[in-house]
Amino acid sequence: MLTVNAYAAVSPTEPLVPTTIERRDVGPHDVLIEIKYAGICHSDIHTNRGDWGPVTYPMVTGHEIAGIVTQVGSAVTKHDVGDRVGVGCMVDSCGECRYCLAGEEQFCVKGNVGTYAGIGKDGLPTHGGYSTHIVVTEAFVLSIPDGLALDVAAPLLCAGITTYSPLNRWGAGPGKKVAVVGLGGLGHMGVQIAHAMSAEVTVLSQSLKKQEDGLRLGADHYYATSNPETFETLAGSFDLIINTVSAVIDVNAYLSLLAIDGALVSVGAPPEPLAVNAFALILGRRSFAGSAIGGIRETQEMLNFCAEHQLGAEIEVVAADQINEAYERVLASDVRYRFVIDAATLS
Amino acid sequence: MLTVNAYAAVSPTEPLVPTTIERRDVGPHDVLIEIKYAGICHSDIHTNRGDWGPVTYPMVTGHEIAGIVTQVGSAVTKHDVGDRVGVGCMVDSCGECRYCLAGEEQFCVKGNVGTYAGIGKDGLPTHGGYSTHIVVTEAFVLSIPDGLALDVAAPLLCAGITTYSPLNRWGAGPGKKVAVVGLGGLGHMGVQIAHAMSAEVTVLSQSLKKQEDGLRLGADHYYATSNPETFETLAGSFDLIINTVSAVIDVNAYLSLLAIDGALVSVGAPPEPLAVNAFALILGRRSFAGSAIGGIRETQEMLNFCAEHQLGAEIEVVAADQINEAYERVLASDVRYRFVIDAATLS
Repeated sequence: MLTVNAYAAVSPTEPLVPTTIERRDVGPHDVLIEIKYAGICHSDIHTNRGDWGPVTYPMVTGHEIAGIVTQVGSAVTKHDVGDRVGVGCMVDSCGECRYCLAGEEQFCVKGNVGTYAGIGKDGLPTHGGYSTHIVVTEAFVLSIPDGLALDVAAPLLCAGITTYSPLNRWGAGPGKKVAVVGLGGLGHMGVQIAHAMSAEVTVLSQSLKKQEDGLRLGADHYYATSNPETFETLAGSFDLIINTVSAVIDVNAYLSLLAIDGALVSVGAPPEPLAVNAFALILGRRSFAGSAIGGIRETQEMLNFCAEHQLGAEIEVVAADQINEAYERVLASDVRYRFVIDAATLS
Repeated sequence: MLTVNAYAAVSPTEPLVPTTIERRDVGPHDVLIEIKYAGICHSDIHTNRGDWGPVTYPMVTGHEIAGIVTQVGSAVTKHDVGDRVGVGCMVDSCGECRYCLAGEEQFCVKGNVGTYAGIGKDGLPTHGGYSTHIVVTEAFVLSIPDGLALDVAAPLLCAGITTYSPLNRWGAGPGKKVAVVGLGGLGHMGVQIAHAMSAEVTVLSQSLKKQEDGLRLGADHYYATSNPETFETLAGSFDLIINTVSAVIDVNAYLSLLAIDGALVSVGAPPEPLAVNAFALILGRRSFAGSAIGGIRETQEMLNFCAEHQLGAEIEVVAADQINEAYERVLASDVRYRFVIDAATLS
């Protein structure tokens, strides 16, 4: 076992604190990664605070991990010492079911192993990226192409794939009109990716406060949803709307913005049920759908796409002792657009 | 103008009565059809009773029409006198917008002209199939293949295409598991069509009362939704669920029956909004969608498919003076599975 530094939640209500955790010995198929950067995802906060159910403490979150390979197991073929690599939301799966075989490990019928708050095949709880090192089976280690800096690449492992996957699957591309609801950590990646896919991109944000950023990131249009005229002006416009907002939204208002055959795809959602007018779906053959992360194959494709198009997250790098402050700022929507922990400060 | 016999609603609350209506003269592109049979669709009842908004009386409904061509306009090329033909829910559209050009006239941006309760290009209200004759522009007249009897073909023009279109679009076929919710006029066509498309078909009905019929029509399985065990047994099973029920359903319960990437497609819906748990969509990349009828091209494809597979509606033929009684029986779900008016009894 390797003892490594980490930053952990110790209860639902207390601040995160420095600690040490154990990583398993590097097995034949394992890769030891020296973590360089770890993004702070809103999911980390929800998990640490028990918002999504009880968790075991200490809890080390972080599933947007970028680093360097420092050791590989005897049977590893995919990675070498010195490789620039990333780890996202999953670190293992059964590898045998039809979804795993199809490269969609997120749907593993036995359940994939979460990067944190999961139970690894060794029966021990998994710990995430707020740490100096992590050991991961090679199949779940992504290659970060040379053109991508590790700090801006880290958030791609969750925010990037979560927006890339539905844009890819629902056919964002030339001639398609795509709207992104919310310009936060997810939304600011969605705008960049949809633009790089050559779609015509509109940001639908509560206000016009971030309009300049949105246009700089690649949006062609920017509308405030607090203005009711927006919904009149844009009625029937979009082939695809990606909703990144986790709060309750007026689904029917957004459905009314879809063209015939359009899809509203939520990647964020509140726990409360949403009221959907089925006639809005029926009359325009529209869909209300959902999507979460993507498989390992698609995540690698996304990283390559981002490198090719020189896309990365807009980040603010923080030291370990700023994590708690960063959490408060995430909750106050005071981040443009992702906090990334410099793992060197954990040592 | 041609004066023809018809059966009309004269107010939202009174029984339908025999009357006469005017049909326009046969123009260069028009076809005069002697109606042989007209199906009774639940939509007719809703329209006649003003459930979907105020209508102009007298109102002659019926959009499941089968008959014989008795006259064609000078420029007509698609049909000849003596042809066996059908008319569905639309009788005209702009013909120029991108949807019309794509053969999806149901989405005409100027609005298609409904077979009844619409306004024709002549500015006059349209009247439907509870009548001895109808004049329709040739582009909206379907050919009924020889292998299909006119009486069982009539309901295909609405119930057939309404179920064929989503089954076709969402890929019902070999290896696909399809559920049909509700075994009524729409559902009994959906089961037959999905079976003929080689999907594995399950009926989800409130009770097992119609189980024998469902299996005879081609269902492989039949479950009662009043039994909560049904939802446990079938969790995660279906690639596609076609919901034909217009009452409020527990959408989340049905979403839970979908496999990864599955779609729940409603062709019936209540006016009330439905509560949807977005996490049910997100975690399985599922969709909740809607669909209504289909374009003329697809409707012809459906008729050819039904002829090839020897499919038709299960019908009970009624005389004109039984229409009011038939309405009461439709409202009491006492029909297996479609009433069809013998238009000869209107003379």
